[in-house]
Amino acid sequence: MKKNKKITEKYIIDKYLRNLNNNQNESFDFKNDGAYLKIPKKKQIIVTNDTILESVDFFKNDPPESIANKIITYNLSDISSMGAYPYAYTLSICLPKNTNDIWLKKFTKKLFFLQKKYNFFLIGGDLSISHKIIISSNFFGFVPKGKILTRTGARINDDIWVTGTIGESSIGLKIKQKEIKINNVDKKYFLQKYLFPKHFSIGNKINNIATSAIDISDGFYGDLENLINEKKIGASINSSLIPLSLKTKQLIRNKIINFNYLLSAGDDYELLFTSNSKNSSIITRLAKNNNIKITKVGTIIEEKGLYLDGKKIKIINKSFQHIF
Amino acid sequence: MKKNKKITEKYIIDKYLRNLNNNQNESFDFKNDGAYLKIPKKKQIIVTNDTILESVDFFKNDPPESIANKIITYNLSDISSMGAYPYAYTLSICLPKNTNDIWLKKFTKKLFFLQKKYNFFLIGGDLSISHKIIISSNFFGFVPKGKILTRTGARINDDIWVTGTIGESSIGLKIKQKEIKINNVDKKYFLQKYLFPKHFSIGNKINNIATSAIDISDGFYGDLENLINEKKIGASINSSLIPLSLKTKQLIRNKIINFNYLLSAGDDYELLFTSNSKNSSIITRLAKNNNIKITKVGTIIEEKGLYLDGKKIKIINKSFQHIF
Repeated sequence: MKKNKKITEKYIIDKYLRNLNNNQNESFDFKNDGAYLKIPKKKQIIVTNDTILESVDFFKNDPPESIANKIITYNLSDISSMGAYPYAYTLSICLPKNTNDIWLKKFTKKLFFLQKKYNFFLIGGDLSISHKIIISSNFFGFVPKGKILTRTGARINDDIWVTGTIGESSIGLKIKQKEIKINNVDKKYFLQKYLFPKHFSIGNKINNIATSAIDISDGFYGDLENLINEKKIGASINSSLIPLSLKTKQLIRNKIINFNYLLSAGDDYELLFTSNSKNSSIITRLAKNNNIKITKVGTIIEEKGLYLDGKKIKIINKSFQHIF
Repeated sequence: MKKNKKITEKYIIDKYLRNLNNNQNESFDFKNDGAYLKIPKKKQIIVTNDTILESVDFFKNDPPESIANKIITYNLSDISSMGAYPYAYTLSICLPKNTNDIWLKKFTKKLFFLQKKYNFFLIGGDLSISHKIIISSNFFGFVPKGKILTRTGARINDDIWVTGTIGESSIGLKIKQKEIKINNVDKKYFLQKYLFPKHFSIGNKINNIATSAIDISDGFYGDLENLINEKKIGASINSSLIPLSLKTKQLIRNKIINFNYLLSAGDDYELLFTSNSKNSSIITRLAKNNNIKITKVGTIIEEKGLYLDGKKIKIINKSFQHIF
């Protein structure tokens, strides 16, 4: 960055944001008062919204790439849990006055990388100056008509499945907040999981076989509860089946971290879904073909509540709830 | 508000926000990871995005009703300038910890009032705790296929039209910032114009006759420039035709405010549009039937640039530009 060069809104748009549009017609080259959305035939359009704030969802000095990764992952994860695949997004970016070119370059480069990886583009948004960094995004995705996944479709005897592994991001946060201390190699590993939660975009591949789905943002237990509470049914989970990385297992063995804590903590952005047990082999094949870990962890039961290895567990009432 | 009652996210949603959804299916009662959008046949869906921040777009102690009015007006104004009518919106609300029931009640009551007036509903969003108040919203609107108004359709000899009156909001801001002093009655009048900019939702009524349109958010001159710059054409404006209120005219006469300043200042949220002169009587009738002031202020000309009473005017380059 040249010293004293004024970073204006126009400068940020021209140098960093226009490129994220991929020359798509919908946005009128960011020169109109809005954009339009093109909906393919036989598809429904889905919209999600997530906002991330400095000091809440990330820290001031977190890498810009991590902040970009979070706003995209949080939203893609919602799009996926609706059974949809991503299409486009808007970005409302609030940045402090002293934001420099290096920050902007890293932030938008990561956005560009994720756009290429998951195939979506920037359709518009808003830029403001603020005291702290705040990024809000609306994502749009498509799902075949009638195939939207909701939180309320689980049926008794359905299998309960989860992608990836649980708890690593929350361990990373604990390390970041200096609540636990571990060796440097593992520290780096978990911090990376906190900074760059991964996202497996498979919602659109299971929308014809899953009965319900949710992304794990508020913790495995809490989000599983969201799948059963409304229908007044229950879930029986086998603790030995919960997918944990070897490093996580070691921390549990060494009593550095508690198993139940990991299942209550959030920010996994894994997909939790239910499906009739007849689909078991389809899901296993899907996981293999897409090189994704998908694990059957339990069963939907008639008895209300959450059961871990047969014992009912009580979830402490959380004040936390999203509009969506 | 009961003392010490904890205002949680769930509390805000249940008590204040769910009501704004009007029980529309699209949002799954705010219990899913996202919402879907229902598009009527033969319509295109439009999306806009605006974010307003404390200390930038409003002041900390501004009435909550004013903040609600601004986030809605800014977006409705964009929807209208695209030739569309409103359908639904998402709200990302960042509020300080000490926000109380009184604030929330006033804020959401105004939203509800505007929803009824313009016929749209809340489809989802996000709630966060932040240092300052920040509200971001995506609006969705419909326009008949092929009827989207853009900024780039103006043709030579088109009439230039503007709704309402110009400059009152910016006078209100000057009063608020104690830059000008006037009598108490007028002070109240202009402050009200700053706090509650009005919006005439007529974009969807002119989408078949207007050649281009924009909402005046960055000032009459600046936004008019946006209609001519891209096409390298010009605009000739007659200063005596610019619609000003009697109170504004008096301030100009008393040299308290400068005419050119009013045309450079923003936040009018009036619609500026161009149309073939053969549509003149249709527009006049439209204004009468809808009880809206719509004034013909000039003509699109071949000669590049902005002309006021035949004299070319120079716009100081603004650093300001929205993504849309």
